[in-house]
Amino acid sequence: MKRARRSAVDPFIVMDVMAAAARAEAAGRRIIHMEVGQPATPAPAGARAALERAMRDQPMGYTVALGLPELREAIAGLYRRRHGIALDPARIVVTAGSSGAFLLAFTALFDAGARVALGEPGYPSYRQILRALDLVPVGLPCAARNRYQPVPEDLEAVAGGALDGLIVASPANPSGTMLSRDAMRALIAHARARNMAFISDEIYHGIEYGAPAVSALEISDDVYVINSFSKYFSMTGWRVGWMVVPEDHLRTIERLAQNMFICAPHVSQRAALAALDCEDECQANLAQYRANRALMLDGLKAAGLERIAPPDGAFYIYADVSRYSDDSLALSRDLLDSAGIAVTPGLDFDPARGARTLRFSYARSPEDIAEGLTRLAAFMKERFAVP
Amino acid sequence: MKRARRSAVDPFIVMDVMAAAARAEAAGRRIIHMEVGQPATPAPAGARAALERAMRDQPMGYTVALGLPELREAIAGLYRRRHGIALDPARIVVTAGSSGAFLLAFTALFDAGARVALGEPGYPSYRQILRALDLVPVGLPCAARNRYQPVPEDLEAVAGGALDGLIVASPANPSGTMLSRDAMRALIAHARARNMAFISDEIYHGIEYGAPAVSALEISDDVYVINSFSKYFSMTGWRVGWMVVPEDHLRTIERLAQNMFICAPHVSQRAALAALDCEDECQANLAQYRANRALMLDGLKAAGLERIAPPDGAFYIYADVSRYSDDSLALSRDLLDSAGIAVTPGLDFDPARGARTLRFSYARSPEDIAEGLTRLAAFMKERFAVP
Repeated sequence: MKRARRSAVDPFIVMDVMAAAARAEAAGRRIIHMEVGQPATPAPAGARAALERAMRDQPMGYTVALGLPELREAIAGLYRRRHGIALDPARIVVTAGSSGAFLLAFTALFDAGARVALGEPGYPSYRQILRALDLVPVGLPCAARNRYQPVPEDLEAVAGGALDGLIVASPANPSGTMLSRDAMRALIAHARARNMAFISDEIYHGIEYGAPAVSALEISDDVYVINSFSKYFSMTGWRVGWMVVPEDHLRTIERLAQNMFICAPHVSQRAALAALDCEDECQANLAQYRANRALMLDGLKAAGLERIAPPDGAFYIYADVSRYSDDSLALSRDLLDSAGIAVTPGLDFDPARGARTLRFSYARSPEDIAEGLTRLAAFMKERFAVP
Repeated sequence: MKRARRSAVDPFIVMDVMAAAARAEAAGRRIIHMEVGQPATPAPAGARAALERAMRDQPMGYTVALGLPELREAIAGLYRRRHGIALDPARIVVTAGSSGAFLLAFTALFDAGARVALGEPGYPSYRQILRALDLVPVGLPCAARNRYQPVPEDLEAVAGGALDGLIVASPANPSGTMLSRDAMRALIAHARARNMAFISDEIYHGIEYGAPAVSALEISDDVYVINSFSKYFSMTGWRVGWMVVPEDHLRTIERLAQNMFICAPHVSQRAALAALDCEDECQANLAQYRANRALMLDGLKAAGLERIAPPDGAFYIYADVSRYSDDSLALSRDLLDSAGIAVTPGLDFDPARGARTLRFSYARSPEDIAEGLTRLAAFMKERFAVP
């Protein structure tokens, strides 16, 4: 059978790094994982206990397509606490992770051939999901001086005709930087004036080190907002997230969800509902990320990697390594082979400029972070004579 | 924000029936559910116990995109037992339900505008997912004399140019009829000769009342086969299924899955792995469907609904009600209002001819089935003077 043109999406380079790291571990080496974008912690204990109980007395059939009503109510409560927003739970759609939300959003908003802008560096799957849906991703080369976030001027500089939509992420992957309220407002205004759909990826909300992240919903109701239980609530493998949509898009999203997903996993929805009551454990995880971040900022500087935008949130640092290499893939292989540190080459996030950057994740344990930084300093000293 | 043209998928009519039934129940009425396409039973006890244990000691992060290796191995074992096929586990992709499998298959196989044939009556979401992906569903009006299954002549009768693919389902929803080995072989040969992709939906496999269902994999390796833990293993809300793809499509599917889903829900994969060892409980469920089916065949006949194709598998009966009505939606409303029986009007499965058919599901308890049939007989006697 022949394959469709749109199926030719790029591989995740980080997957190759992970496979190489797994081979090294199988051969008996200890590898420090700074490539993985997921917490080392399990789902909150309260969520796991709730699921244990549910296993005894709940049949776990399909839920309605938009998700368990009590979960949608509880998510509305989160917006009240975090952002002071009174959000109608009817506008909240429980999804199969943020991945499911992106599939719903893109099919609801864009017809084949539509051009959708996204900041680079950025989460690689935006681009690949758009392609798989016969849409055209338009990368915006974001400047280091703008802390790798898009600004209206980046959109104005795009050639090739009108844009149909814009995706932003704050805190961002891979940079961890956030959009200020004014920056978010400017992008929303720009999009609205041009009849572009505006999609705000807020899956790292709650993992913030200074000011709290601004939700696009604080500025406008005419946006799509995507979030997830994967990061702050430490539930990556559960595949449960949510999306907030404009009221007049609800029926469209409901019908798409009924047909494309039937529902998000019922067990995961139950666990997510309980996780929303586990604030203490989530805050303890956050304290650990905060400690890791401080270690990383010191350790990277000591290893000669000081060209970074200090992350406002998430658990990543995006480092410019152009002083040492213009082949980040080769550098990441060298780091794995010589120092036993797995990191992600920037090419996954920025096909144009990522050959000169690396992403470091600090989602794992502080012991691993400390060991990784010691190894990194030794590697940089030996390889590049960093003092 | 504007919505995409492709987002305008049809509503599920059965959802409106379910909502009306829920309102009646909220008002205190007892409704007999013959509309719902899911077992009343929970996941097998062994699966639930395994998950309870896993909650204590497994972090449940992302799995690799193609699924837990031990689950893929175990699914290969199922093909050995059921079909005598030695299937390479590498060709098995664990998916977020069969829904996730369809999204992967369609994006891997078809570019925007491709024309994909499907039998009518058939599962409505095929058509809607195709539309959401900017593909063109082409309905084949299947004949009652062919037991509502497509035959090569149906494909030859299609006007408007070449077809890019064909989806078959055996046992089928809503008819419960199966394709014989010869019928399956003829369709696969027809598709191959015309360079059409062939997708076999086998999610009701295991729920069979006479001969075992034939898998397309018994005939060819150059097919996509989609299956699920939802039906035979009674795990609808868990959203875990699988797909078998040709070997040379694996890398494509892996990359699409990495980006579109990351992975199927880890908890559900763990439970599914344990469910594969719960054959006794699944066979007990099957015995109940078999008893229900016998009740239904007698009871529908007694109620004057004898124009059906006796189902080979699944838990549905598709009945021609044209002697009584040419408005199945109105008839289903009358059945709900007057007799407290929820059934699905055929329009969900066959937009052209479904105004003269109803689908009865017999997945619930034998007590409910018996009560429903008593009510149905009384209704038909009063409304249509059925003796």
